[in-house]
Amino acid sequence: RPVNEVLFFPCEAVCVEHILNPSFSCFCSLPHGQETSIHILLRHILSASSSLDVCMFAFTNTDLSRAVLALRSRGVAIRVLVEEKNISICGSQIPVLLGAAGVCVRFNRTPISMHHKFAVVDDRRLITGSLNWTCTGVHDSNENVIVTEVRGLVRPYVTQFARLW
Amino acid sequence: RPVNEVLFFPCEAVCVEHILNPSFSCFCSLPHGQETSIHILLRHILSASSSLDVCMFAFTNTDLSRAVLALRSRGVAIRVLVEEKNISICGSQIPVLLGAAGVCVRFNRTPISMHHKFAVVDDRRLITGSLNWTCTGVHDSNENVIVTEVRGLVRPYVTQFARLW
Ligand SMILES: [Zn+2]
Ligand SMILES: [Zn+2]
Repeated sequence: RPVNEVLFFPCEAVCVEHILNPSFSCFCSLPHGQETSIHILLRHILSASSSLDVCMFAFTNTDLSRAVLALRSRGVAIRVLVEEKNISICGSQIPVLLGAAGVCVRFNRTPISMHHKFAVVDDRRLITGSLNWTCTGVHDSNENVIVTEVRGLVRPYVTQFARLW
Repeated sequence: RPVNEVLFFPCEAVCVEHILNPSFSCFCSLPHGQETSIHILLRHILSASSSLDVCMFAFTNTDLSRAVLALRSRGVAIRVLVEEKNISICGSQIPVLLGAAGVCVRFNRTPISMHHKFAVVDDRRLITGSLNWTCTGVHDSNENVIVTEVRGLVRPYVTQFARLW
């Protein structure tokens, strides 16, 4: 049965360490043991086994970039397409991703700005919505994200990513 | 068979008058007789027979606001929720909508900004994506919009609209 769900944000600041680093017993000051939309989003990203394609207007969220790097260290092929004017915004994760061996990053350099906020996991699970992968988006804005494996929805995004890449 | 489709933007500036005003033979300077993503989007909005709920970060596109007003004149119940800080941006359609009898407009006045870009037609057709209802979005940005009647996707947005309204 294909995944088909909706996540809403903002979500409270709750520790996500058990997802990113399961073997580590965290003692940070955030609440532990609760699951929010960001936990579910991270799990969907981390479900990748072969590829992750990210097409993102702004990317400043460290939890999400750690998930991308964790996939990379497992050998998942990563492509990240971002809007050029957001490469260097405060907290940008793009320099971090550029520094990671094997993560392919490209920039939209056309005059048509790249406002997408979607990712495709293994060419078959689409994550898309209003949410940029930023701290503001996750914790301080009303946002929505659809996660779907309905082929008629996923395929156009796969094609669109190939076109923009 | 439920609607389930994806639209991509930007689209070329092509006349939409035949959709908004079918009885009028337009002689404007834009190309005529082509259908683009904005035409399809307008048709989905105009398919409303009982209600249209719009939850939009920024709303400056006159074609889209004319579609909303056309629905209103047919007796469709209209609710528009917008981000307060975008009420008065250049080209804002909010004053136009506020001036139209029977269009209910509310503002997000919470400190949590309202970044959604979705609409629900007749409680059963969801329109959602990265696209704000702006001229920039439609004509000058790479954007995506999902139009779906899959109940598992539509219902959470109906609930979310009620919560934010
Ligand atoms: Zn912790
Ligand atoms: Zn015309």
